[in-house]
Amino acid sequence: MKREYFRDKCGVFGIYNNNESANLTYLGLHALQHRGQESAGIVSAENDKFYSHVAMGQVIDIFTEERISKLLGNMAIGHVRYSTTGDSHLLNAQPFLVNYFRGKLAIAHNGNLVNYEMLKNRLEEEGSIFQTTMDSEVIVHLIAKSQHSDIVARIKEALFLVEGAFSILIMTENKIIGARDPFGFRPLNIGILNDSYVLASETCAFDLIGAKYVREVKPAEIVILDRNGISYDTIPSINRKNSFCVFEHIYFARPDSILFNKTVYSFRKRLGHLLAQEEPVEADIVVPVPDSGVAASIGYSEFSGIPYETALIRNHYVGRTFIEPKQSIRHFGVKLKLNAIKEVLEGKRVVLVDDSIVRGTTSRKIVKMVKEAGAKEVHMRISSPTTNYPCFYGIDTPTRSELIASSHTIEEIKRYITADSLAYLSLESLKKALSSDHSDYCYACFNGDYPIKFPWMDTRLNDTMFK
Amino acid sequence: MKREYFRDKCGVFGIYNNNESANLTYLGLHALQHRGQESAGIVSAENDKFYSHVAMGQVIDIFTEERISKLLGNMAIGHVRYSTTGDSHLLNAQPFLVNYFRGKLAIAHNGNLVNYEMLKNRLEEEGSIFQTTMDSEVIVHLIAKSQHSDIVARIKEALFLVEGAFSILIMTENKIIGARDPFGFRPLNIGILNDSYVLASETCAFDLIGAKYVREVKPAEIVILDRNGISYDTIPSINRKNSFCVFEHIYFARPDSILFNKTVYSFRKRLGHLLAQEEPVEADIVVPVPDSGVAASIGYSEFSGIPYETALIRNHYVGRTFIEPKQSIRHFGVKLKLNAIKEVLEGKRVVLVDDSIVRGTTSRKIVKMVKEAGAKEVHMRISSPTTNYPCFYGIDTPTRSELIASSHTIEEIKRYITADSLAYLSLESLKKALSSDHSDYCYACFNGDYPIKFPWMDTRLNDTMFK
Amino acid sequence: MKREYFRDKCGVFGIYNNNESANLTYLGLHALQHRGQESAGIVSAENDKFYSHVAMGQVIDIFTEERISKLLGNMAIGHVRYSTTGDSHLLNAQPFLVNYFRGKLAIAHNGNLVNYEMLKNRLEEEGSIFQTTMDSEVIVHLIAKSQHSDIVARIKEALFLVEGAFSILIMTENKIIGARDPFGFRPLNIGILNDSYVLASETCAFDLIGAKYVREVKPAEIVILDRNGISYDTIPSINRKNSFCVFEHIYFARPDSILFNKTVYSFRKRLGHLLAQEEPVEADIVVPVPDSGVAASIGYSEFSGIPYETALIRNHYVGRTFIEPKQSIRHFGVKLKLNAIKEVLEGKRVVLVDDSIVRGTTSRKIVKMVKEAGAKEVHMRISSPTTNYPCFYGIDTPTRSELIASSHTIEEIKRYITADSLAYLSLESLKKALSSDHSDYCYACFNGDYPIKFPWMDTRLNDTMFK
Amino acid sequence: MKREYFRDKCGVFGIYNNNESANLTYLGLHALQHRGQESAGIVSAENDKFYSHVAMGQVIDIFTEERISKLLGNMAIGHVRYSTTGDSHLLNAQPFLVNYFRGKLAIAHNGNLVNYEMLKNRLEEEGSIFQTTMDSEVIVHLIAKSQHSDIVARIKEALFLVEGAFSILIMTENKIIGARDPFGFRPLNIGILNDSYVLASETCAFDLIGAKYVREVKPAEIVILDRNGISYDTIPSINRKNSFCVFEHIYFARPDSILFNKTVYSFRKRLGHLLAQEEPVEADIVVPVPDSGVAASIGYSEFSGIPYETALIRNHYVGRTFIEPKQSIRHFGVKLKLNAIKEVLEGKRVVLVDDSIVRGTTSRKIVKMVKEAGAKEVHMRISSPTTNYPCFYGIDTPTRSELIASSHTIEEIKRYITADSLAYLSLESLKKALSSDHSDYCYACFNGDYPIKFPWMDTRLNDTMFK
Repeated sequence: MKREYFRDKCGVFGIYNNNESANLTYLGLHALQHRGQESAGIVSAENDKFYSHVAMGQVIDIFTEERISKLLGNMAIGHVRYSTTGDSHLLNAQPFLVNYFRGKLAIAHNGNLVNYEMLKNRLEEEGSIFQTTMDSEVIVHLIAKSQHSDIVARIKEALFLVEGAFSILIMTENKIIGARDPFGFRPLNIGILNDSYVLASETCAFDLIGAKYVREVKPAEIVILDRNGISYDTIPSINRKNSFCVFEHIYFARPDSILFNKTVYSFRKRLGHLLAQEEPVEADIVVPVPDSGVAASIGYSEFSGIPYETALIRNHYVGRTFIEPKQSIRHFGVKLKLNAIKEVLEGKRVVLVDDSIVRGTTSRKIVKMVKEAGAKEVHMRISSPTTNYPCFYGIDTPTRSELIASSHTIEEIKRYITADSLAYLSLESLKKALSSDHSDYCYACFNGDYPIKFPWMDTRLNDTMFK
Repeated sequence: MKREYFRDKCGVFGIYNNNESANLTYLGLHALQHRGQESAGIVSAENDKFYSHVAMGQVIDIFTEERISKLLGNMAIGHVRYSTTGDSHLLNAQPFLVNYFRGKLAIAHNGNLVNYEMLKNRLEEEGSIFQTTMDSEVIVHLIAKSQHSDIVARIKEALFLVEGAFSILIMTENKIIGARDPFGFRPLNIGILNDSYVLASETCAFDLIGAKYVREVKPAEIVILDRNGISYDTIPSINRKNSFCVFEHIYFARPDSILFNKTVYSFRKRLGHLLAQEEPVEADIVVPVPDSGVAASIGYSEFSGIPYETALIRNHYVGRTFIEPKQSIRHFGVKLKLNAIKEVLEGKRVVLVDDSIVRGTTSRKIVKMVKEAGAKEVHMRISSPTTNYPCFYGIDTPTRSELIASSHTIEEIKRYITADSLAYLSLESLKKALSSDHSDYCYACFNGDYPIKFPWMDTRLNDTMFK
Repeated sequence: MKREYFRDKCGVFGIYNNNESANLTYLGLHALQHRGQESAGIVSAENDKFYSHVAMGQVIDIFTEERISKLLGNMAIGHVRYSTTGDSHLLNAQPFLVNYFRGKLAIAHNGNLVNYEMLKNRLEEEGSIFQTTMDSEVIVHLIAKSQHSDIVARIKEALFLVEGAFSILIMTENKIIGARDPFGFRPLNIGILNDSYVLASETCAFDLIGAKYVREVKPAEIVILDRNGISYDTIPSINRKNSFCVFEHIYFARPDSILFNKTVYSFRKRLGHLLAQEEPVEADIVVPVPDSGVAASIGYSEFSGIPYETALIRNHYVGRTFIEPKQSIRHFGVKLKLNAIKEVLEGKRVVLVDDSIVRGTTSRKIVKMVKEAGAKEVHMRISSPTTNYPCFYGIDTPTRSELIASSHTIEEIKRYITADSLAYLSLESLKKALSSDHSDYCYACFNGDYPIKFPWMDTRLNDTMFK
Repeated sequence: MKREYFRDKCGVFGIYNNNESANLTYLGLHALQHRGQESAGIVSAENDKFYSHVAMGQVIDIFTEERISKLLGNMAIGHVRYSTTGDSHLLNAQPFLVNYFRGKLAIAHNGNLVNYEMLKNRLEEEGSIFQTTMDSEVIVHLIAKSQHSDIVARIKEALFLVEGAFSILIMTENKIIGARDPFGFRPLNIGILNDSYVLASETCAFDLIGAKYVREVKPAEIVILDRNGISYDTIPSINRKNSFCVFEHIYFARPDSILFNKTVYSFRKRLGHLLAQEEPVEADIVVPVPDSGVAASIGYSEFSGIPYETALIRNHYVGRTFIEPKQSIRHFGVKLKLNAIKEVLEGKRVVLVDDSIVRGTTSRKIVKMVKEAGAKEVHMRISSPTTNYPCFYGIDTPTRSELIASSHTIEEIKRYITADSLAYLSLESLKKALSSDHSDYCYACFNGDYPIKFPWMDTRLNDTMFK
């Protein structure tokens, strides 16, 4: 129910050496659709010729059989994107395809570069013309400017110069090169399907196409797929430190994916266990906010012994725009997606479980809806710590001032959302759930401890207009 | 997961005396979208002029703000439809709008008329020309032919002549008339929103627009909404007998609707209880086939004490058509919609709960998917009796020969779907769940006891080409 | 330049016994496109199955290769339509396809039935439901109601009952039947292409597909194309009298067609000769209003010896709607279509030739444009008599009150259009141009002598809101 | 009838200081539609923000009222384009809009740069990335690379470096800059509408919007429109020489335009006079190939005294693609556009006048069509010399080997097109028609005397695959 606030910018997929490369990329993107619904695209290549179809909308609407049949070649990369910046949405959709002096490049990027503006300014001063307002474009210009003649060396130089989060796929006339930034913010995985190597943001894409999951691309690792099979290289980097995005686990990734070596669903259920242990409450039923709170709810119910009830029903046919009636309908926005079952809620003390609270407006509407359906008490339980800080590494969070927890106490938030009690999981419990490798994660959105700093970061943190 | 086999033909919605009638009908249809995704339409009326927009596709795609703004007037009826017959799909979409000698009529119909062909033949012999292949059209011709001058009398005569299932809304220049067939196969409900009366197939439509649920339209009842408010009349009928469709409760209706005076979710959960009691099994986890098996699963888990796990994850972005890869992907069709979580299933004895088995092909794929994810045993439990007979009253079931249970024993079905055990809820338990009013229901799809017979019914029952 | 005022309602085309029937019908309709640009449609038939594509727009935009390939069968009829009445434009497009008791019928009709409303009322009183507001639909209902079992007899009965103008094609499962009303208002021609018979509104359609022109269908004649080849029948009629539409010759038909046994271009040129003889003027150049005045201008120039100059240049890319600038541009509407060449007109005495004046507004703009380009004098010459009366037989003329000549003298019109002189061809000269068969024509738009009268004709003549 | 062979690449239009700039640009482009029907676009600007709509298709189809209303600002430039090269058609459509280090630029270009590839290679080697395959893009990169800080100086430098044909409009945040190459190949004109300056490829665009024609932009002249009104500058150039494209006069320009100080229509008529004088023939009628041969035909008829007849009728509804019938239709391609009037041609000796012969295939079809309509003799007369050489300056001619006159004698061409005689206007007569300023023209397509040579020109001249 919070997809409108936190947004991971993208999902990427690539496959090499497969005569159904475009079709399998299409399926892979479909499996990654939850990572971005605004645009999607596929670029395939054959005999030095690139074939591209990129459009606004969802994968199943954009790609027809006819369109896929025109994406020839035995390698392809694809991209789904959530939000775009700049004037022309379609221009900013990916994969981004360019011709430069030494050939053709297609790029699919998930993440956010923090030194983009500085690099762009420098390149423009030297006469480069940017076609888009995407940060990813700066990588292309750096590749084009590099004096190395070998393409991998050129890419290595470009990726050394950019800073921030990137899990990226680059297709040339005869290679697909995948890379993950030295901090490893965003996921990127290697799979294998018969003789074809596959790269994807999440392992659920492998499951759909029947590929076997091999392992994660390591932070700073470069993976090269070409006719020699698979080979590896490394982005030169200093001061690197593992900083996997913990929010991918809490909210973004699909429950059936294996992320940073953990199954997402089981991890979320474990958060529910710890939440029940840490923040118990006398109640009659545990109700998830669908679908984000389902796994933690089951965990909470299991640990506490309080029965689990899916008392909020989701309408699966929700699209992006909706025509509002003039006459006031209570909780209108939420009603389009959810409806509360009166008979189940009436007279009950309800534990309502969700994964996070961002602005608080949606939680407020849901709590009210549950109460109007007859609940006697509503105890809100959140399976992560309070979200206090914006993300600069690829998650589209609101500005700090819009994050309700950055300026309100938990008691104040409880009153705002009209709950009878409110509790969050502690950072300690979150780390406990991650167990031995908890120090490999980035918790900046909870504690403000940013792994990569950059010149105007402080301004941004205080800038209410940031977004 | 079975929406591709059982199909209720439609959902209807109407509102009288509201200056946002088209907008609220649009919202109402959105809430009823699960009853039909193939076409949708709204007809509104003002000062003897009718405004119509009917198109193929889903409600949110069909209606833009601009289109709704052109549907003027303070009354409107709407329709969502699943399947169509005949050559021209759009022609068969509803509401169906005609001009006849005494004025204009718009009709939205849910159900199926069993004496349609006989009546159509008779009317055509007399020179009537049919525009569509919808059974609903016969009602319009009967109204046009009636010698009564009063519109309600004309409608009464027409509805007396047709036989079968109908929950129908008819809009004239100054009235909305709702009616439910004397057997009451399909639901139809009355709601109120401030000064406006609302009629809808399911109560979840009232919840979305903030209307209050009043009561069901009774079998054989005619409800007239006009400037005098609400009034009632009755379809003359002999040998009528309450025959509410039990399958609406088991599968079609939304869990948050109140149907035939019972909350659907709670009823389904109770089926789960009874199923656990009747068909217990030693197991480690209870897993629902999403979303149709969720409520019964929770019930099964609750009664049996076996933990509930959502180990099958649904992809919400599934559309109607999908491009298949040439290379074989195991369980391809099911993988587009579901993925199994290995970590949860590995080594487990799984109770897999669904509401029904139609052809068995989908169940087979799901069982295999669960086993490939590592499940040690899969015990399939179905929260309804075996489906042996086709429906003639508005549910789009396959022919008898395609219903696996009509020609196979439970043991054979078990082997076909590769489950370790298979059990269905007994008809007795189903009736027990319905409690005191169980005799008001139609169980024809389970026991072949058809409330309305018609001349070529036997042929149809044996006709493998029926559909 | 007057296509916006006078409109012939349609063009029809049919071909029997040709395995490219849809494709050739598409080409035939393209050749008849000038007879109607609002909608077009083709219905083909094979083995009792009809295939139809009807849409708003022009032939080349509506029909793609894929769409034509789906119109199977070795017979087809097609239709282009100008204006529609009623609410739903597409519903009123033709060919009109119905299923009735005894089979399928597709109808393509050019003309206007004067007793349509009377017949429709009678049929509706008996319970028939009309799907469209087209007069053509009444024919279908009459066919359906007929007690004859033979289809030709049924059609004969229907065509006997309707009154007015019709050149009509009717396709059944195994026949194409063409008929022309007993007065012969609209043209209809027979052609032959190898073993295939062709019927078309104008002979230019035969030229495009390489068919040979055989002869006109005679007034009251019925032509039956079936597997026995071609055969003939007659609509029973009393008081019939040849009444060919002279305006087809003056304006509607394409110059390269042979119409009522005369080549249109030559006839129009002859009108120019007679106009020059009857209404001479001292001038320097003869300039046509393109394209309607071209042939008459050449005739005028030839007879008078005054040089012919195409000093008004037509923009061929004009579509239907145009966005007007807010700032006033002189003669804006006309400028989109025409531009005057200053160098040619400067200081010249100009004879401006057109075929008719309807409201006078366009002529006024053109005369002013010619004067602003520097013409010293503008002498308007019209190659037909003054248009005083509306047409009830298939030409979409304005109401009588909008016809400038019905209420103004030629002197007044001259002043209104700001010409230095204005003259029309006399009715006598028009008849002279037609020579021996001049009594076979209808001149009602000039002299009000209507061949078929009907009850409310007088009201219509005086009704300013008629259109 | 030859628009499929010779193609001028574009038309441009710009207007400064007008609050209806987008609307007037739309009208201006409509008037220039004959210069390019493949794509069209408008870019307007207001307060440093640019608004753009560029699409494939014709002006009237692309621009709706809503789209124009979004093109804000009191200045705008527009472009219509015929043919595109490269993969992505839409990318190559214009105006081309970029952001570079010092701001925004929109460019609309008519012409062809001969040193494009050399400049592009050099820029790419330095790391510039090209977005399109349009030659015009090189100008943008040169402007971005220039070290001058003043925009006009930057443009001057860029235009000094490019060689070839260009009539170009460049819009910055606060200026519109127009320029014509030092040779003056393509036209560009200055107009004035109240307080607004207008620039357009042809004067017919001024006529439509009611602007007054001021004068031509001079070769090498730069015109700057900004809040100081109009000012002028010059492209530094050596060895420049007036080289106006004579083919604009013979074929491309609209007859009602004033081009290089001559009215096109009158010039073409004068070619007809000289052709009649130089190449007389005994004949009964003069018939133009519409519309390209109309003015010269009138001239030929006038001088020779042989009557003028429009015996070939053009179908105005012709679109770009057409579905061919499988069965052979004689002269199919030509029949879609033209039809011959038998009655006029039968038994006649015909002078058929056209402006040029490119491949000869169309002429051959037309001559055959005229003969099949009954003409006794067909004498083809061409109002320009034989076309022997391709154009490198913006006209999209076929390769040399496809120009029939480059490898065949007039006698051979006559036989190929099956005419009874064939004659072309001599180069001397063409120059005579141009009179005193004939040395200001480029005749390269006739005599191979190319004003600008470039390195691989000879290869191209001999390259059969050039196009």
